[in-house]
Amino acid sequence: MMSLPSASEVARHLRIVRSARPLVHCITNTVVQNVTANALLAVGASPAMVDIVGEAGSFARVASGLLVNLGTPSPEQRSAALEATAAAADAGTPWVLDPVAIGALPVRTPLAHRLAAAGPSVIRGNASEIAVLAGLGGGGRGTDADLSVDEAVPAAAALAERTGAVVAVSGAVDAIVGAGGAVTRVPTGTALLTRITGGGCALGAIVAAFRGACRDDDPASVTASAVATYTIAAQRAAATAAGPGTFAVALLDELAVLDHDAIEPALASAAVAGATR
Amino acid sequence: MMSLPSASEVARHLRIVRSARPLVHCITNTVVQNVTANALLAVGASPAMVDIVGEAGSFARVASGLLVNLGTPSPEQRSAALEATAAAADAGTPWVLDPVAIGALPVRTPLAHRLAAAGPSVIRGNASEIAVLAGLGGGGRGTDADLSVDEAVPAAAALAERTGAVVAVSGAVDAIVGAGGAVTRVPTGTALLTRITGGGCALGAIVAAFRGACRDDDPASVTASAVATYTIAAQRAAATAAGPGTFAVALLDELAVLDHDAIEPALASAAVAGATR
Amino acid sequence: MMSLPSASEVARHLRIVRSARPLVHCITNTVVQNVTANALLAVGASPAMVDIVGEAGSFARVASGLLVNLGTPSPEQRSAALEATAAAADAGTPWVLDPVAIGALPVRTPLAHRLAAAGPSVIRGNASEIAVLAGLGGGGRGTDADLSVDEAVPAAAALAERTGAVVAVSGAVDAIVGAGGAVTRVPTGTALLTRITGGGCALGAIVAAFRGACRDDDPASVTASAVATYTIAAQRAAATAAGPGTFAVALLDELAVLDHDAIEPALASAAVAGATR
Repeated sequence: MMSLPSASEVARHLRIVRSARPLVHCITNTVVQNVTANALLAVGASPAMVDIVGEAGSFARVASGLLVNLGTPSPEQRSAALEATAAAADAGTPWVLDPVAIGALPVRTPLAHRLAAAGPSVIRGNASEIAVLAGLGGGGRGTDADLSVDEAVPAAAALAERTGAVVAVSGAVDAIVGAGGAVTRVPTGTALLTRITGGGCALGAIVAAFRGACRDDDPASVTASAVATYTIAAQRAAATAAGPGTFAVALLDELAVLDHDAIEPALASAAVAGATR
Repeated sequence: MMSLPSASEVARHLRIVRSARPLVHCITNTVVQNVTANALLAVGASPAMVDIVGEAGSFARVASGLLVNLGTPSPEQRSAALEATAAAADAGTPWVLDPVAIGALPVRTPLAHRLAAAGPSVIRGNASEIAVLAGLGGGGRGTDADLSVDEAVPAAAALAERTGAVVAVSGAVDAIVGAGGAVTRVPTGTALLTRITGGGCALGAIVAAFRGACRDDDPASVTASAVATYTIAAQRAAATAAGPGTFAVALLDELAVLDHDAIEPALASAAVAGATR
Repeated sequence: MMSLPSASEVARHLRIVRSARPLVHCITNTVVQNVTANALLAVGASPAMVDIVGEAGSFARVASGLLVNLGTPSPEQRSAALEATAAAADAGTPWVLDPVAIGALPVRTPLAHRLAAAGPSVIRGNASEIAVLAGLGGGGRGTDADLSVDEAVPAAAALAERTGAVVAVSGAVDAIVGAGGAVTRVPTGTALLTRITGGGCALGAIVAAFRGACRDDDPASVTASAVATYTIAAQRAAATAAGPGTFAVALLDELAVLDHDAIEPALASAAVAGATR
């Protein structure tokens, strides 16, 4: 029970994002705040990094979507994350949990488990992070994945079942696991995303933008569209980049101009490549 | 009573900045610290992000200029901002207040009002932020402006009158409101500044650099020169950029080489465009 | 008693880094976290910015190397730095101290002295910072060097003697002072490194990567290889850059592809230039 995203659906969701210009509330790590904000602006969303106690809750109520990323979970951000997610749940704001580098790290790991039980709309991570959050695996080294995406799909399905969230596993071919365990594969992308910091973290924010703007559409399909948009922009950027520096710059340029004419052939090529390998 | 900056004055102020290499003390949000420091270095100033209690005050005394930007006002930064602005007032260090996203947000909004009453040399914001700080308007969504610059000019004049600060309103055509309500328009710029994070925040730091280096010149004129320098560099960068990624890179390159030969035609063209529309 | 790095040694150490992909634990300032992580990824290392109390110690035990940079030393980072360096000492993890802007600043300066006495493997700074840490000189303005590298070499030697660390002094021609006061000069580089933020800070992380990966090699030689790798990549980037913006991007691209064929002529040219000037 696997499928690929439809180019017309991806393009439709992207048009909705650009038209709605969703306000995306980010509580995210200090390493990637800049690239995250720029990725949101490039795709047509409006970022706001409101990560202090006393503001995070009220802002989560009015935001279109919320991202909680645990990459540098200072005490202030931890409290703000709890405040924001409680408010998001109350107000119906969709929110994305990115459990960065959980496993052995003793502060963020229990916090991630607590947040996973608090009703996230999407959980996005690499294979190791998803396995840890599902109760399997012991965690990786930093942000690297020790498991393959395929190996993590059963964990993702268990986590989706338990939390009600769509679970997005990032890797060479991303897997989006929705309600009932249905799996969508997003075969687009580039290894250069692993050679820049924030390659995965920015995607979490893009997912929050799509989920916030496309509330009337199927959650797994909207999540897959976000992943496809981001990874197709990335592979287009990689085609012209001389290395990770120029890649990160081109990724923003590509996110700003991506449209159906670029999405359709990228998905078609990836589908053919997948069918013949 | 409106005027444009003079190209020779802008170029003269820019030469003073490059010669003096002002030390610009920044207490600014974590999203834009990197681009802010790079913009200061590119224009010829020397950035220092000293945002902790116990250091902010002593550093504000020796710095050429100070920026207080409320984008991610952690408890530590809030205390550091109060410490720094008190020291700046005592030592005569010019300082810039950037009241990012004030309005509905309940922590930064009262802090911004308190700081506005503490003697800033310049207040820089978008139209909505300036209206809120003047006591008009209810605040926007994040960092977006809901008002036009023209609509905010009366609020800016009231705020300038009340605080003694030069008030700089950013938008399609920036307005600089000085003592007595005189308005200088800076018609240069590009919409791409709204498609990168820190497009406005970095300008606040550039203003602090100019005010710190050009203390013997008219405050409104110096502020207008900072805005013109930044927006002309931006429109030159936009002319060669393929999107927001390459634009942000080119902006730094242009800030580093901008001179009278680039400033003069940009202001002349903008003046003609303004006169005929 | 001065020498230059050997191109074959630099290339050998770089190959070890790329093969080992060392996990580099960074407690570093919020201004440069992004460029630091990207520089580590570009050179082939794996960054992890674990800067909170309760995680910094356990992570320092498993990391390949640790960087402690005092650029924005919040209370949380100060406590995390103490936790991490104690754990690193216990576990034998090599660590780098970067005493950013010490001198007059009253919080970071005593902390830097305390950390210098806690067994760092490398101390990296500009000439003024090294002089202050050695107990000479009163400190500079922000991150600028007021002393030349040559003037700081006696201070570096005293500091190396007292702490047991390799001391790396950054400037036009970097000096690496090892055990017994032996000095290695690294004459490669570009003034553009002083026109971007993080130009020195990212180098501290690269040194941690090299020291973490090449534990069986001579500490001063490995440190010199890290400095040579970084500064040769920088001068190659400068050769094609239009300004500081494009330089910062090209630096990452060059770090990713640098090899013996690029290192050898760069060191040979620099040696000739040094011999004839």
